[in-house]
Amino acid sequence: MPGTLPRGVRRGPRVVAIGGGHGLSATLSALRLMTDQITAVVTVADDGGSSGRLREELAVLPPGDLRMALAALCDDSDWGRTWRDVLQHRFHTDGPLDQHALGNLLIVTLWELLGDPVAGLDWVGRLLGARGRVLPMTEVPLLIEAEVRRADGRLETVRGQSSVARTTDPITQVRLVPADPPACLHAVAAVEQADWVVLGPGSWYTSVLPHLLVPELRSALVRGGARVVVVLNLSPEEHGETAGMHAEDYLAVLHDHAPELEVHAVVADPRAVEDTGRLAEHCEARDARLLLRQVGRSDGTARHDPLRLAAALRDVVEGVLGDLGPRGGRGFH
Amino acid sequence: MPGTLPRGVRRGPRVVAIGGGHGLSATLSALRLMTDQITAVVTVADDGGSSGRLREELAVLPPGDLRMALAALCDDSDWGRTWRDVLQHRFHTDGPLDQHALGNLLIVTLWELLGDPVAGLDWVGRLLGARGRVLPMTEVPLLIEAEVRRADGRLETVRGQSSVARTTDPITQVRLVPADPPACLHAVAAVEQADWVVLGPGSWYTSVLPHLLVPELRSALVRGGARVVVVLNLSPEEHGETAGMHAEDYLAVLHDHAPELEVHAVVADPRAVEDTGRLAEHCEARDARLLLRQVGRSDGTARHDPLRLAAALRDVVEGVLGDLGPRGGRGFH
Repeated sequence: MPGTLPRGVRRGPRVVAIGGGHGLSATLSALRLMTDQITAVVTVADDGGSSGRLREELAVLPPGDLRMALAALCDDSDWGRTWRDVLQHRFHTDGPLDQHALGNLLIVTLWELLGDPVAGLDWVGRLLGARGRVLPMTEVPLLIEAEVRRADGRLETVRGQSSVARTTDPITQVRLVPADPPACLHAVAAVEQADWVVLGPGSWYTSVLPHLLVPELRSALVRGGARVVVVLNLSPEEHGETAGMHAEDYLAVLHDHAPELEVHAVVADPRAVEDTGRLAEHCEARDARLLLRQVGRSDGTARHDPLRLAAALRDVVEGVLGDLGPRGGRGFH
Repeated sequence: MPGTLPRGVRRGPRVVAIGGGHGLSATLSALRLMTDQITAVVTVADDGGSSGRLREELAVLPPGDLRMALAALCDDSDWGRTWRDVLQHRFHTDGPLDQHALGNLLIVTLWELLGDPVAGLDWVGRLLGARGRVLPMTEVPLLIEAEVRRADGRLETVRGQSSVARTTDPITQVRLVPADPPACLHAVAAVEQADWVVLGPGSWYTSVLPHLLVPELRSALVRGGARVVVVLNLSPEEHGETAGMHAEDYLAVLHDHAPELEVHAVVADPRAVEDTGRLAEHCEARDARLLLRQVGRSDGTARHDPLRLAAALRDVVEGVLGDLGPRGGRGFH
């Protein structure tokens, strides 16, 4: 059975990936190429789509982002890929199952059976022969609220991740409801024991920032021994929460929400940076290394290429500083 | 991975179990104690409950009876039992997922992904580490129709398995729609290669008889080398298709629908037989051995005890004739 087979000696640095959705999947697809010791810590504030409906019907954590993270870590075998495809399969009907992903239903079933979100996710991990562990950032379902500045200057509160993610007006602040939720203790331990934590890419306000609003997670990130690398998005959304944001804005937003968080490295694709000088200055001011590398796919889509992102993250981890962008900053060893 | 592990040498006779629902589960729970070479051939005419709703929403075979059969064959390990419980889990909500079994949704997902009912069921079997194979009797969804004699003597057609199963008036004939459906070829091959075929227990008209109405399956049963053992129900239903039926009536109904089918042995619990003499005469007339054994549970419920049923079926297979009911009949070796 996959879960009980000896998995061999663990190799590579201990890395925690923080985020949600497609961005986190991209990071995990890259990380699996460079280390066996991966923990994904996933947002649990989704209230749209299949997850939103399950949350409402069954009063559970939204499973969708957790499912996608698990799928990204599946064993590279006929077995692992088949069960990944099963988990990712969505029904297309004229009835009530339309758009439900089987993996969401499977995760929720394990939660109902075992009464323990982490144990349920670990069973799905065993099914997939997953190359790492996937954890929720908290074990309570959350709501995201954002303060948005409207065109007339008014501040307005937008409630719910799916609504916040669609907002095109500038977001000035995000909050969790309930505020200060208890962290998943396994996630806190993973961050505390990590060598590296990867933040992003992804929906910045609704997938990346929420982790910093969970006090115990934020504390582990700030006080733990892990170095933090931020992977910037390849392009702002045309219509959505990051519309109009420049590369350095992502870092500024992080800083606004968690000023005490030290960022050790920033990975950005030069094609996605309007003004590399400004980004370099921003990184230097924060004492962060900037790696300008082609990490996007060659097909022109705004998606990270797992091999290229893996190469960049390996360089970060190994402290290969040869062709980095700016001068100065702290070394890695 | 369960499906790729060497499973050791196959042992025991090749047995095909024919039926559906809880009756088939009972047979499989017994058979797994006496042989590793089990194939379940399952009715696909269910139109009620979760299966009925999936059939309507997704235009697929009804998965419920297939799921139950697979669950009965799960590996006897933490792995096998956990995935069995996952498959058997039903949602209880105020919304559209209410009463759906996760295993039904999983089977349907594999069918949609692979486009092949048998391949999909084999994957679920591998997940469970199943001690045998589960096949549909046909790969097309079927409708069951029954001719029912009303109190005033009128004959009336009742359509749909769930309606037929609830009928308390005597059934004179069951039919499949479409008539003469093509059999699942793997099921035909399994019957042709079997040493024994077990018919029943179960809903006689809607789970056991339908197989005899599939021409290629019937032909394999009649002309193949397998010996047929019939396991009688423990009690007629109070309200349903077998209401008022006596032990020998089950055999008579079989004979009416497939006169050319030779029955080699009949297993009956003496507590469920009103008149053992009449049943013995009936068996003798058909040249079938009668084994009167306690095969019901000790708790008084009308459910078969897997250990007792296994012991009885082993005696049938091994031809242990010591304490059989009636005299005469053909030996087994």
